[in-house]
Amino acid sequence: MRKKSLLEAFKQTQYQISGHGRRNIQVLKEALLNIDGQQESDLYGKGKIIEEFQTKVAKFLGKESAVFFPSGTMAQQIALRIWCDEKGLNKVAYHPLSHLEIHEEDGLKKLHNIEPILLADKKRLIVMEDVMNMGKDVACLLLELPQREIGGQLPDYKTLESISTYCREHHIKLHLDGARLFEILPYYKKSAAEICSLFDSVYVSFYKGIGGIAGAILAGDETFTEESKIWKRRHGGDLISLYPYIISSNFYFDQRLNKMNEYYEDAKELANFFNQCQGISTNPLVPASNMFHVHFDMPKEKLESTLIAIYEKTGIGITSYVKETSVKSCYCEISIGDQYCIIPKDELRRLFEMLIK
Amino acid sequence: MRKKSLLEAFKQTQYQISGHGRRNIQVLKEALLNIDGQQESDLYGKGKIIEEFQTKVAKFLGKESAVFFPSGTMAQQIALRIWCDEKGLNKVAYHPLSHLEIHEEDGLKKLHNIEPILLADKKRLIVMEDVMNMGKDVACLLLELPQREIGGQLPDYKTLESISTYCREHHIKLHLDGARLFEILPYYKKSAAEICSLFDSVYVSFYKGIGGIAGAILAGDETFTEESKIWKRRHGGDLISLYPYIISSNFYFDQRLNKMNEYYEDAKELANFFNQCQGISTNPLVPASNMFHVHFDMPKEKLESTLIAIYEKTGIGITSYVKETSVKSCYCEISIGDQYCIIPKDELRRLFEMLIK
Repeated sequence: MRKKSLLEAFKQTQYQISGHGRRNIQVLKEALLNIDGQQESDLYGKGKIIEEFQTKVAKFLGKESAVFFPSGTMAQQIALRIWCDEKGLNKVAYHPLSHLEIHEEDGLKKLHNIEPILLADKKRLIVMEDVMNMGKDVACLLLELPQREIGGQLPDYKTLESISTYCREHHIKLHLDGARLFEILPYYKKSAAEICSLFDSVYVSFYKGIGGIAGAILAGDETFTEESKIWKRRHGGDLISLYPYIISSNFYFDQRLNKMNEYYEDAKELANFFNQCQGISTNPLVPASNMFHVHFDMPKEKLESTLIAIYEKTGIGITSYVKETSVKSCYCEISIGDQYCIIPKDELRRLFEMLIK
Repeated sequence: MRKKSLLEAFKQTQYQISGHGRRNIQVLKEALLNIDGQQESDLYGKGKIIEEFQTKVAKFLGKESAVFFPSGTMAQQIALRIWCDEKGLNKVAYHPLSHLEIHEEDGLKKLHNIEPILLADKKRLIVMEDVMNMGKDVACLLLELPQREIGGQLPDYKTLESISTYCREHHIKLHLDGARLFEILPYYKKSAAEICSLFDSVYVSFYKGIGGIAGAILAGDETFTEESKIWKRRHGGDLISLYPYIISSNFYFDQRLNKMNEYYEDAKELANFFNQCQGISTNPLVPASNMFHVHFDMPKEKLESTLIAIYEKTGIGITSYVKETSVKSCYCEISIGDQYCIIPKDELRRLFEMLIK
């Protein structure tokens, strides 16, 4: 008999520690349930359905204007392109583990001919010193808050303010990769608008903490967003209708925005459970949002077997995949959503008893 | 009182000559009605829901492989880029009224640095002579069937075969802009696979004659489609979930594919009605698909007032917009779908009596 994969075992669990539940068609059906079928579609970026949502999110982010995009990949490349064109300089700066650097098949370079300067290193956040040393021939600095690939770490707010001031003084645009912006509001105890006021342009996503189907918003002043619409068309993102994503983004935004604090508190509780296990630690030690990484001093294959056995016994899934860091160690990512709090605490305790052994 | 616009008057009509009915949320709701909510989402281009549809359409087009894209704009730029990269030559050829030339904000040039050679002129189709004269320093020739911006004209099949043979002999790739490929099958009396066999790569759309919400397929051999997936990610089109578009594309594909002949016959009937009116003629005189243009020897504003009066009296909408061709003439586009055949013939006769006057 073929050995069961971690993903298969995960899919068979009754409870999952991460996320909002299964990504299935029901997610869309629920969002549509109370929508009047006679409501008109958006049409190439126009119409009530898209304009109202854009206005709503622009206001939430404290920006003049916002544009809905099918993806963050598209939105962010476009933001950087606009800032580079404005300065007549095809250089930007970001973290070596930025989404643009590792998940986009070099779209920024291949489509826009933009060269990134990589700040800090793969183990740590960008600090003020990195920014001061990057040189002044940079059109835009992109900061990702939280820095997902190192467990969702966050700089303190003072650092953000200093970087923002420095960039303004040196005429370098500051762009926020806010894929998980909603998720960090409880940590900073700031409004989205306060944080966004430090940045010239902002991208937010609607299928991470918000749990929509897909979709992103790019926000900034109106000159910027109008220009971004032209690039959206060039990229092939100005679809005749984006409403399936807009409706679901709006629905889950309303439903989950106020839950971010709960997810954050749950993440801290859960990280603490992991950190009590020998050979297991979280990064960061205390989560700064609903997400963190769990590092295991154990070879990937061994951990997978252990996890499969635990999933089968407890009915609780921790993760569907594990990434190797060395022959002797590996890690997984946890993002708390609606599912964590419905797991019976007794069952969760049983899971950690098994993990400790 | 503000004068009513043509669009407003059109929206208030009971019947519409063009299309499948209003573009509203019901279109999505209907497609989802019989879909099991527990069915898993696609995930970054993987999963049953996307793979099955890709396989189905690849088979229908007689191609080895197919990839679902959010838009044709994205799919076609990518197709041309792949063929250019393969030949190491950033030159393609297409019609001056190609979608790429007039509706994409120069994405092909601005993102891919590809130079188009414009064949034929704005009034006529590309013929064999244009192809023979375009030179051999061309990576790919794009043919749009039917040529939408000149009323959906079509070359005869022999011309297509000759162009295909010429391109193969001269190592020029031939790409089909098949935004309305399903719609022309009755004219050629050929299968989609027969027509596509003349081309190296093919794009088809699911929201024209098929009447889906958005979405496109790019098909070709597997090396080509695999490469297109990398570019899809670069463009920001590799969304975590495309299923709202895939489900609706599949649903309306099954529902309308066999109606293309009916739409074609209806288009010919309707064009004939228009051609009986003085000062009105269709382009082409006899439609080659479900679409054609109607040219009016009348200033745009005058036609709009006439149409608004007709819409109000008959309850039938002909078009929601009119384009000026000169101070004395204008035109509109008609695309027959499900709506035409439900208009009572008496009412339609009344409409044409009013139009003749």
